[in-house]
Amino acid sequence: MRGFGVITTGKAGWMEKERPVAGPLDAIVKPIVLAPCTSDVHNYHGGAGPKENLILGHEVVGEVVEVGDMVTRFKPGDKVVVATTTPDWLALGVQEKYNAHDSGPLKSFKFTSSRDGVFSEYFLVNQADANMTFLPENVKPEAALMVVDMMSTGFHGVELAEINFGENVVVIGIGPVGLMAVAGSALRGAGKIMAVGTRPDCVKIAREYGATDIINYKEGDILDQVMELTNGEGADKVIIAGGKPESFTKAVQMTRAGGIVSNLVFWDAIDVLSIPAPAWGLGMKNVDIRGGFCPGGALRMERLLNVLENGRLDTTKLISHRYEGFDKIEDAFYLMDEKPRDLIKPVVFI
Amino acid sequence: MRGFGVITTGKAGWMEKERPVAGPLDAIVKPIVLAPCTSDVHNYHGGAGPKENLILGHEVVGEVVEVGDMVTRFKPGDKVVVATTTPDWLALGVQEKYNAHDSGPLKSFKFTSSRDGVFSEYFLVNQADANMTFLPENVKPEAALMVVDMMSTGFHGVELAEINFGENVVVIGIGPVGLMAVAGSALRGAGKIMAVGTRPDCVKIAREYGATDIINYKEGDILDQVMELTNGEGADKVIIAGGKPESFTKAVQMTRAGGIVSNLVFWDAIDVLSIPAPAWGLGMKNVDIRGGFCPGGALRMERLLNVLENGRLDTTKLISHRYEGFDKIEDAFYLMDEKPRDLIKPVVFI
Amino acid sequence: MRGFGVITTGKAGWMEKERPVAGPLDAIVKPIVLAPCTSDVHNYHGGAGPKENLILGHEVVGEVVEVGDMVTRFKPGDKVVVATTTPDWLALGVQEKYNAHDSGPLKSFKFTSSRDGVFSEYFLVNQADANMTFLPENVKPEAALMVVDMMSTGFHGVELAEINFGENVVVIGIGPVGLMAVAGSALRGAGKIMAVGTRPDCVKIAREYGATDIINYKEGDILDQVMELTNGEGADKVIIAGGKPESFTKAVQMTRAGGIVSNLVFWDAIDVLSIPAPAWGLGMKNVDIRGGFCPGGALRMERLLNVLENGRLDTTKLISHRYEGFDKIEDAFYLMDEKPRDLIKPVVFI
Amino acid sequence: MRGFGVITTGKAGWMEKERPVAGPLDAIVKPIVLAPCTSDVHNYHGGAGPKENLILGHEVVGEVVEVGDMVTRFKPGDKVVVATTTPDWLALGVQEKYNAHDSGPLKSFKFTSSRDGVFSEYFLVNQADANMTFLPENVKPEAALMVVDMMSTGFHGVELAEINFGENVVVIGIGPVGLMAVAGSALRGAGKIMAVGTRPDCVKIAREYGATDIINYKEGDILDQVMELTNGEGADKVIIAGGKPESFTKAVQMTRAGGIVSNLVFWDAIDVLSIPAPAWGLGMKNVDIRGGFCPGGALRMERLLNVLENGRLDTTKLISHRYEGFDKIEDAFYLMDEKPRDLIKPVVFI
Repeated sequence: MRGFGVITTGKAGWMEKERPVAGPLDAIVKPIVLAPCTSDVHNYHGGAGPKENLILGHEVVGEVVEVGDMVTRFKPGDKVVVATTTPDWLALGVQEKYNAHDSGPLKSFKFTSSRDGVFSEYFLVNQADANMTFLPENVKPEAALMVVDMMSTGFHGVELAEINFGENVVVIGIGPVGLMAVAGSALRGAGKIMAVGTRPDCVKIAREYGATDIINYKEGDILDQVMELTNGEGADKVIIAGGKPESFTKAVQMTRAGGIVSNLVFWDAIDVLSIPAPAWGLGMKNVDIRGGFCPGGALRMERLLNVLENGRLDTTKLISHRYEGFDKIEDAFYLMDEKPRDLIKPVVFI
Repeated sequence: MRGFGVITTGKAGWMEKERPVAGPLDAIVKPIVLAPCTSDVHNYHGGAGPKENLILGHEVVGEVVEVGDMVTRFKPGDKVVVATTTPDWLALGVQEKYNAHDSGPLKSFKFTSSRDGVFSEYFLVNQADANMTFLPENVKPEAALMVVDMMSTGFHGVELAEINFGENVVVIGIGPVGLMAVAGSALRGAGKIMAVGTRPDCVKIAREYGATDIINYKEGDILDQVMELTNGEGADKVIIAGGKPESFTKAVQMTRAGGIVSNLVFWDAIDVLSIPAPAWGLGMKNVDIRGGFCPGGALRMERLLNVLENGRLDTTKLISHRYEGFDKIEDAFYLMDEKPRDLIKPVVFI
Repeated sequence: MRGFGVITTGKAGWMEKERPVAGPLDAIVKPIVLAPCTSDVHNYHGGAGPKENLILGHEVVGEVVEVGDMVTRFKPGDKVVVATTTPDWLALGVQEKYNAHDSGPLKSFKFTSSRDGVFSEYFLVNQADANMTFLPENVKPEAALMVVDMMSTGFHGVELAEINFGENVVVIGIGPVGLMAVAGSALRGAGKIMAVGTRPDCVKIAREYGATDIINYKEGDILDQVMELTNGEGADKVIIAGGKPESFTKAVQMTRAGGIVSNLVFWDAIDVLSIPAPAWGLGMKNVDIRGGFCPGGALRMERLLNVLENGRLDTTKLISHRYEGFDKIEDAFYLMDEKPRDLIKPVVFI
Repeated sequence: MRGFGVITTGKAGWMEKERPVAGPLDAIVKPIVLAPCTSDVHNYHGGAGPKENLILGHEVVGEVVEVGDMVTRFKPGDKVVVATTTPDWLALGVQEKYNAHDSGPLKSFKFTSSRDGVFSEYFLVNQADANMTFLPENVKPEAALMVVDMMSTGFHGVELAEINFGENVVVIGIGPVGLMAVAGSALRGAGKIMAVGTRPDCVKIAREYGATDIINYKEGDILDQVMELTNGEGADKVIIAGGKPESFTKAVQMTRAGGIVSNLVFWDAIDVLSIPAPAWGLGMKNVDIRGGFCPGGALRMERLLNVLENGRLDTTKLISHRYEGFDKIEDAFYLMDEKPRDLIKPVVFI
């Protein structure tokens, strides 16, 4: 079968591989619609260590082709939404609070990490019963596609931030994850949502998703701007979905006593993130610094899809570019790498 | 000064009283807009024990007339939103998780309980700095009025229910508190919100606030209807904002394993609420049964008002009847007692 | 193989059955030490519905005899501690907060429920990797045996009660589960622990485990006694591990505003548990009523065993009777049924 | 009246001041027993900014001399335990989750910060009803003295770390706060408690308080030692109660996915604390980094004293040096500054 991925670090392309074989708990699925993600591009550039001959992709809605004999919920022909994070539910790590770490940090992330990804004619889903769910009838495939990683990740930032009614929130970065963090904050009843970003399309969608204030980092220090918008008090919660290491430091600085900084950025090119000791109250200010990987599993998918099914969120606003045809994975991928100013998420209908 | 209240149980009317005198921490406030509440009517009928010569009312937005010498945040002329629940912040009970119980159950509720209420030319707010807040510029007085008890109570039901993204919620009863519970559930990102009620105006507003399904108890057992809407699984969370003692029992029955029943009804005419042992998993189903009184304090008011300021909720939909003039308190009160079918909340502009 | 169980309701005895066959994820284990439980006796008397030809028992430490091909952590000869609750980790219910309800209320409890129990020469453990753990070197088998259900259940009551430092706790009932709730409360830093019971051995152990006050229900109303011991305020938390339906009602009555009632009793012979409305603050007192089934899984076992390994608890105090030999299962079982006054837990070394 | 404190930065000594005057909510108290704290010494050396003519001290048990007219719980002659952190309960910050920040970060800390401390013949307690409690009959004054800051702070570290049954905990630093963190961890049912320290007296007491392993940083890297003790997995929770900035970084490195780092150190001489990005899972490991100031208030004191009253903890093990007489405050203070190897806490009986 054909797949698109990393041939060697820095070199992407099509490759021919054997179709994966389902173990008793697994399913083989073919894509209906899929999307590249910045982490695919990271992989290509070696950001997650050298990779070779690896099919990329981890955002997909597909159709079941084959199931292992111990799979009970699915059969060939079922249309399914596949979580980006597909834990081994028999590992002890899932019995803890966060399921992204089944047998060690981030180990529940299998696609492109311990296994080929989904930019392929067929791909394998481990423990299918527990890691994928049915595409709801009234949810479009491309809307569901935005759930598996973008919404799940953005909303994880909101969950970590424990946003309460009327709290003022900053979201740094309004790419697709940041936009979902904006939408998720609004769906928790936040007060002010101050979104940091400049790209016009993103700004427009941020407002539609509930941002009340847009902070343009080109027009002044973001810390100063947040302080001004909050009467010098700082924000209750800050979600980091983009920016530079300095943004992390500023995020701590702009958070009120008792608040939470919630990180969603993958800091893969740096050694150290700096906590500014005085602004962190010398360690005494009860400002939590958190950060986590997108949880997975079928139940999470069901719950997030349920938000869509009931009309509370339109995830398709994230989709800036649409392609048709399996071969277009390549174009969508390189577009992701180029990052034109109007890009949010490209999707490929297979 | 004049005030309207209970003369003796079952007899309401106007009364003349001395204007209250502010202690060092208190403020004297005059009403700008106020609203009667079902609990005022309960008081009149003796529901909270015999009362005599007591001015009623606990929902008000007003203007400061006088402040005690230790008050620092307010001065005469300030327009203020007064929490219905005004704890004594020097009592130890507020150092616990819920502030409604400063020195014993519900003791933080002062108006009409340990002191005259707000249907008066002037009324006293204890510990003004901690129990009232400024009326925000872009929030109408009547919108803020709906915050102090209705929104605060309805949202407390949502808080107790710990609603997570995509969870299916039932709200039993869609009077003003139930409607706020619907709105609050939507503002937590619930999935289905199944609202139990029949009055057309309430049903219409419930839908506008985010209810996805309306359950008419006249058209069949509400338990059966919830089970059907949830594929036999039951709801994740149930908020009780109306109904009879049987509704409480049904609420437990319709809740899934691991779910929460959150009670907002004041069960003042009954001795016992029945938990159906088998449906409660014989005590093993991890279904929590909770219920609490509207928390108070200035910070809560600020946060809830912040939801309005940022355009996430329009509380004025609750207002079904508007009166002008202090003397109309009487009409509004008796309307509340009559409960015509189109009544949600009457307000009186002074 | 031989096993001891229910032949028909009300008739227990030995039976001959086929040795179970391990599926790919399962293990076959033989007992090293086991214990009957009151719920085994309930089963025998028909408390959990009519049962027939069913091997009883769910508390066991054993030795692995055989493992399925997908089992990775264990091999024949390993000494293992088997959780009483052995969820199907591929079912969606475990992705919720409580793992006892894999595909419906209490469905994670497999032994004697959907499958033969452990009073057998061999028994099957589903999803062995996720549901059993190694017997630690410095923990005696019989000490570990007290962990799988008694400690796990008693401590679940403590977890549900969210006991904070210095809180006053009542534990109603000091059979083995109640004793573990006492020990668990002490291990959360409770203040007063008031244990309700009369049997001298239990009283003695309750004190050793950290009870500060013993309440003898024969010497006066337990509600009055708790009120006296708490200066009329009531307890912060109440754990119900025994008693009659009236005890449940009294538990609610003796709990302070903001407190929690945590139920561990299986109310299998009754239809209704009564909440006293006035004492529950008419639903306004923020007193939570909770109750849940013993969570399971390997990680929980590891963590609880870790408490023992580090010398913080001696569970063997619970063991009042010791038997040697497989055939003695019968004697231990009937002893459990007779409930002599000095019985806490009998164990059988195979 | 006489008091001991900072005359100018770097110069301590006795000073004569007017006896403070109680406002309506305040009490004037005279010390029965008091203790210097490292933060007093910091103040003397200018660690908290230049101070002048300021009486030091914030750990005290005393006797009420005078109360303001609005004080209801206390009268002259009462023996009282005074919280180190005495919030203004009328400020909005206490209506948030943590009460140490009444009107800004750490603003609830009044002694030696916004007001003279307790090394004085008389001192003022703001909002006495809410900030002090009665010395329990069966608790020695010096035992209670160890509660107001040392136990309250050490236990706050335990609370922030959310220690669950059987979790493995590291406590870095076993001065008095670290020792209390050890004791508090044991009182939450931790598994292994690995205490980092070298001083023989502290090591001995750490073991008595529940430490299972002592890590000597002179005998190897503490990170390596923790990894070895935890089979390479890292600790579930790490409490930082001492050490250098590098210890903070190592704390993050030694924490498992899903774990918590809880900081109690006042990082007053540094600008930046470094989070090691790779060991923090590049921000994806769900390791929370927290840190907070000792909460205050009367209820907290009551609860912590209740732990003592019920015999669960002997705080007097912390007391390494005892002085008699008001004038000995000076000796105790300089001892604290010298930090002899056998010093834990000196106390002065007045």
